[in-house]
Amino acid sequence: MIRLYNCEDSGNSYKVRLLLTQLQVPFERIDIDLIGRETGTPRFRARNPLGQTPFVELDDGRVLAESNAILWYLAEGTPLVPAERWARAEVLQWMFFEQYSHEPYIAVARFWIGFTPQERLEPRRHLIPEWHAKGNAALGVMETHLARHDWFAGGRYSIADIALYGYTHCAADGGFDLAPYPAVGTWLKRVAAQPGYVPLELAW
Amino acid sequence: MIRLYNCEDSGNSYKVRLLLTQLQVPFERIDIDLIGRETGTPRFRARNPLGQTPFVELDDGRVLAESNAILWYLAEGTPLVPAERWARAEVLQWMFFEQYSHEPYIAVARFWIGFTPQERLEPRRHLIPEWHAKGNAALGVMETHLARHDWFAGGRYSIADIALYGYTHCAADGGFDLAPYPAVGTWLKRVAAQPGYVPLELAW
Repeated sequence: MIRLYNCEDSGNSYKVRLLLTQLQVPFERIDIDLIGRETGTPRFRARNPLGQTPFVELDDGRVLAESNAILWYLAEGTPLVPAERWARAEVLQWMFFEQYSHEPYIAVARFWIGFTPQERLEPRRHLIPEWHAKGNAALGVMETHLARHDWFAGGRYSIADIALYGYTHCAADGGFDLAPYPAVGTWLKRVAAQPGYVPLELAW
Repeated sequence: MIRLYNCEDSGNSYKVRLLLTQLQVPFERIDIDLIGRETGTPRFRARNPLGQTPFVELDDGRVLAESNAILWYLAEGTPLVPAERWARAEVLQWMFFEQYSHEPYIAVARFWIGFTPQERLEPRRHLIPEWHAKGNAALGVMETHLARHDWFAGGRYSIADIALYGYTHCAADGGFDLAPYPAVGTWLKRVAAQPGYVPLELAW
């Protein structure tokens, strides 16, 4: 059975849990303490040289990291990864956009503002305006796309939607206001109405 | 013919040029002035809503952004993207690693230290230690992998190697010393010995 090394409050881990549930793939879940920085320990590094959560481990010991690579691995051959070449590239375009232009601001703001003791946020407080400016720029790109399309790629629900849903739907935790993005709001509801959808459960 | 909207000194653009050349795919190259911030103009945004360079445009007007999604689109079905499911996921793992843990430090240090007038670097000078620490962490992850493998995924040269080569081979421009990473150094030579290899040409 696939083992998912998981952080319950991480959107990157949630993406993988959501997909596994929607695909009805059984998995064993091992919780990792991100805030206690368990990912930096030698024991963790020995298992996963990339030092990240989430990662998955197969029965034969092979390990795969990077949430969006895991999504692709699990979903390839299912309707959640399009078969057509251009649509596949569009899925990847939006997943790379998510990791480069969205997660580093929207997830990072959520982590520091929503999940970290105030005294640890303090030395980073001057970064909040940049997180919000760049996160809002990413939300603007999504809004422009979603004003004209129901889904991100291939005209249907795919792992590109799962990847972007992970941190968009809980962006308010990082101080983002989604009201100026009505098409994003409608799309969030569309994702949550998909068969097998499960909400992000916070660890506390 | 594919049109590549390109920035000559960008490693992300270079990755696509290198692949197109190795695949012997003819392309038209349109140079974009990144330092003059042409990517932010309305004319540019109208063509490419993601506001990034590089992007490619097909004859029918379809546009694809994100360098690593472009690599996948161009190389899928060739030996540069493995056919086997696990190896494909490994390619993507390393390409997401590159965009999340490598490029934001190694490429960003190169841009600001190597390509920007000193007075524009000044307000960001305090970020240099973080760029170097996180960039060296990424190089360490690569070194650990390359000490035991010739290539990043699937046991052969792939677009994962091209993606990581883009900014690793010119990391010195951003003040990185590659001497502590001998396996990385050997791999750089291995990439440069591939058929059809072309070096990054700087615009000046």
